[in-house]
Amino acid sequence: MKKIINNPANVVDEMLKGMSFVHSDLVERLDGYDVIIRKAEKTGKVGLISGGGSGHEPAHAGFVGDGMLSAAVCGAVFTSPTPDQILEAIKAADEGAGVFMVIKNYSGDIMNFEMAQELAEMEGIEVASVIVDDDIAVENSLYTQGRRGVAGTVFVHKILGHAARKGKSLHEIKDLADELVGQIKTIGLALSGATVPEVGKPGFVLEEDEFEYGVGIHGEPGYQKEKLQPSALLAKELIDKLLTDFNATYGQQFGILINGLGSTPLMEQYIFANDVANLLAEKGIQVVYKKLGDYMTSIDMAGLSLTLIKLENAEWLEALNSPVTTPAW
Amino acid sequence: MKKIINNPANVVDEMLKGMSFVHSDLVERLDGYDVIIRKAEKTGKVGLISGGGSGHEPAHAGFVGDGMLSAAVCGAVFTSPTPDQILEAIKAADEGAGVFMVIKNYSGDIMNFEMAQELAEMEGIEVASVIVDDDIAVENSLYTQGRRGVAGTVFVHKILGHAARKGKSLHEIKDLADELVGQIKTIGLALSGATVPEVGKPGFVLEEDEFEYGVGIHGEPGYQKEKLQPSALLAKELIDKLLTDFNATYGQQFGILINGLGSTPLMEQYIFANDVANLLAEKGIQVVYKKLGDYMTSIDMAGLSLTLIKLENAEWLEALNSPVTTPAW
Repeated sequence: MKKIINNPANVVDEMLKGMSFVHSDLVERLDGYDVIIRKAEKTGKVGLISGGGSGHEPAHAGFVGDGMLSAAVCGAVFTSPTPDQILEAIKAADEGAGVFMVIKNYSGDIMNFEMAQELAEMEGIEVASVIVDDDIAVENSLYTQGRRGVAGTVFVHKILGHAARKGKSLHEIKDLADELVGQIKTIGLALSGATVPEVGKPGFVLEEDEFEYGVGIHGEPGYQKEKLQPSALLAKELIDKLLTDFNATYGQQFGILINGLGSTPLMEQYIFANDVANLLAEKGIQVVYKKLGDYMTSIDMAGLSLTLIKLENAEWLEALNSPVTTPAW
Repeated sequence: MKKIINNPANVVDEMLKGMSFVHSDLVERLDGYDVIIRKAEKTGKVGLISGGGSGHEPAHAGFVGDGMLSAAVCGAVFTSPTPDQILEAIKAADEGAGVFMVIKNYSGDIMNFEMAQELAEMEGIEVASVIVDDDIAVENSLYTQGRRGVAGTVFVHKILGHAARKGKSLHEIKDLADELVGQIKTIGLALSGATVPEVGKPGFVLEEDEFEYGVGIHGEPGYQKEKLQPSALLAKELIDKLLTDFNATYGQQFGILINGLGSTPLMEQYIFANDVANLLAEKGIQVVYKKLGDYMTSIDMAGLSLTLIKLENAEWLEALNSPVTTPAW
């Protein structure tokens, strides 16, 4: 394992210290917890939190700030945060109008976020939530019943964050979230596995000329291993799967997120983006929103994911375009 | 070579198409050239250009936009752009007040930018320039007389871009640039070599437990290979070298840039940032500006660089903090 770290047991703690130092103008760490909160006056609006295991940086702490998350809970690497940590995030995010939780679809996350919700409700805080299950690659997986929650989650953060900032109620945000998660789909591919520092070796190994479609962001198995192909063919496979799942038709409007998984150079991401642009144009899909970069990574995994969001609602596009002040959006 | 590309000979062209597609709200490609220009009305101010070989993304095209560069010239991978391409960038950037060129210290870049300057001047455009040589790792190198130009260049883009937007004259910008380059120093380390697509294998290979201090952004040799050490020791080496070169003293104010070289996860960058914070605090150095992420990469190289900028001038800090609209700042 070749990493710029100190003690593998301390990576999350030291990373959160580094993050609080670098972005001290925007966020701070909740004293004594692995929770990043935004530096902002409380204005009585709905608090928005998310989180999960660490190793997906900048998710989720990089999306804490005005117009996105109020707080992010950071578990151990690839490990759900504990209910007591989530409870503190809820309490920190509460401004009196309730707290909404964005949970990726992993069994441990759901269990712990729901337990924290019960604890918070006992303290008189109203809490609601949504489960994001945007990864269409496989049904059920190592840590998931149904589909996994992956990069599309950041679109949920962005659109709900805009709604919260505009003063929408907890119930309005819940309704919006339920509508939103059905309109966001993601699929990815990996060229290499991620190395969890405390494990010290990659979670899986591919041959020198091999890649795998549909790998999860914790290295969960995908649906097909193949010999490496040109970017345009990779893009075609991912787009065909996504458009079929959407039952998309000519002329429809979508937004896209091309997401690097941690060690994929921008050069490759942009080349892939060019192929995506060409293929979507051929299909008559209108791309009205575009985003590219590392948003939901898997530590040092090489590969990328493609997310589509159906944008028939002008308010959603406005929400995506609205300026925010976060470390990583 | 495991990369998400199509034909290795077309990577720059396809990357620039992808970049123009993704960031079509901010930038566009100059028709027929490997030049990215900003989409903005010309307002009679000094144009600011930069560029060099590709493979350092998001540099430099990612810094084109309001408040930073007017245009970026993108050579072949790790290869200086040709004078005709640079000339087109100068012409596109010219708004009648002259054009200023930010050149990294590589012999090919200097020769070609200066040739383009002569051609532009023959067409009646006033041109001035600065050479950035911030890498203190080694004196002279494979492609450089003196010190190499690396990540500190983006601070030059940012501060000069602010000055140009404020309407400073070409002579004022030249004076500012000359002052600035003496106050920006960088040093880095690599855990792996970069693979140029047309070469197909890494430019250099390190042992599984080995890293190298002072490697250049084209894989130029550094000053020392060692067994991998904890992040805190890496940070100490880089900081000691930088503060010695600055002759820095207790209480002085600096800005920092922690720059990933292409495949370094944010987790590692933030852990390193925490070590940098601790060490600078111990030395009594005040860190008044902080930036972290991938700004000047070497394709898929693993490793990072640390840049310090001495910030005794309040206007420089204001320039660094001023908002811009670019793909990557």
